[in-house]
Amino acid sequence: MVFCNRCGQATERRVPATEDRERDVCGACGVVHYQNPRMVVGCIVEHEGRVLMCRRAIEPRRGYWTLPAGFLELGESAVEGAVRETLEEASARVRVVAPYAHFDVPHIGQAYIFYRAELSEPSFAPGAESLEVELFTLEQVPWTELAFPVVRFCLELLQEDQRTRRYRSHQGRLVRDPGATAFALRDHLAVTLA
Amino acid sequence: MVFCNRCGQATERRVPATEDRERDVCGACGVVHYQNPRMVVGCIVEHEGRVLMCRRAIEPRRGYWTLPAGFLELGESAVEGAVRETLEEASARVRVVAPYAHFDVPHIGQAYIFYRAELSEPSFAPGAESLEVELFTLEQVPWTELAFPVVRFCLELLQEDQRTRRYRSHQGRLVRDPGATAFALRDHLAVTLA
Repeated sequence: MVFCNRCGQATERRVPATEDRERDVCGACGVVHYQNPRMVVGCIVEHEGRVLMCRRAIEPRRGYWTLPAGFLELGESAVEGAVRETLEEASARVRVVAPYAHFDVPHIGQAYIFYRAELSEPSFAPGAESLEVELFTLEQVPWTELAFPVVRFCLELLQEDQRTRRYRSHQGRLVRDPGATAFALRDHLAVTLA
Repeated sequence: MVFCNRCGQATERRVPATEDRERDVCGACGVVHYQNPRMVVGCIVEHEGRVLMCRRAIEPRRGYWTLPAGFLELGESAVEGAVRETLEEASARVRVVAPYAHFDVPHIGQAYIFYRAELSEPSFAPGAESLEVELFTLEQVPWTELAFPVVRFCLELLQEDQRTRRYRSHQGRLVRDPGATAFALRDHLAVTLA
């Protein structure tokens, strides 16, 4: 941020009087511009033991496989956003069954929130942002062609849950340590659903 | 938003070429300014059958009771933010036990995320933003002096959970219908924890 979006004058980076951390503050009108993490919401759609995945038609990670998900918009709930993204990317109408994961990715200021869902109608097709949409068993998942680390963590945990026949709800944060190539899931907190 | 925070020129409200909804777009440099909901994260701290609450020392709702919570900051996870806010507002060190609620409030672009937590040390005191901090049984909660509807929904659901001796994890959205004075919880989805 360089300019105030209210008055158009230059902002400066400083700790406002009543706060404890640096913010972008307008030097002219004094308004404090808060920046906060954004939510990315999506669905893990299960159908006959398989999971619905999309091959991305857009950057970043064009050609790689992901779960249907996207930025939560103003005016909608997280569940509504997850359902909308699944319709947009996979042309699939779904019903959310349970929360599955809330994984923060602090270094990019994003929180990924996934719900388990089921198909309301047994149909799906690539939306504008997808090259292909397919149902995979967890053994068939294209593990080496996944778009994002968060997708891998979701699917690995789902695999554990299927093995133990107990669904859980997961919290955690994804971090990449200095020098490391892969992301790690930290502070993993899982509760088992009845 | 009136001015572009990257180049300082005027923004306009229009549907960008590759999108399906109106955004603030810079008329000069063309950058699209996305606006997304913000997360408010907090804790329901239970100790010996009672819940930790704070009486607000700041506006909005100065003098009213709330659960410790505040905006998630860049660089932290939702759990870390909830723990930080509890330390700031109630001087209480806590350990998060389980997710409790994700309630979207679409008309103000906020998502409230609460965790159940327990005291790491049996001490608490008002922080700078609190007038008082107290432990209440759910019968003693100052129900008529609650700061926000989301606090009431959390505590009412916790009361149900205590009655049935089964903790749940709750999703939903808070809406105020035209002409209504109170908020309603819509699309309430509750899963029971094992």
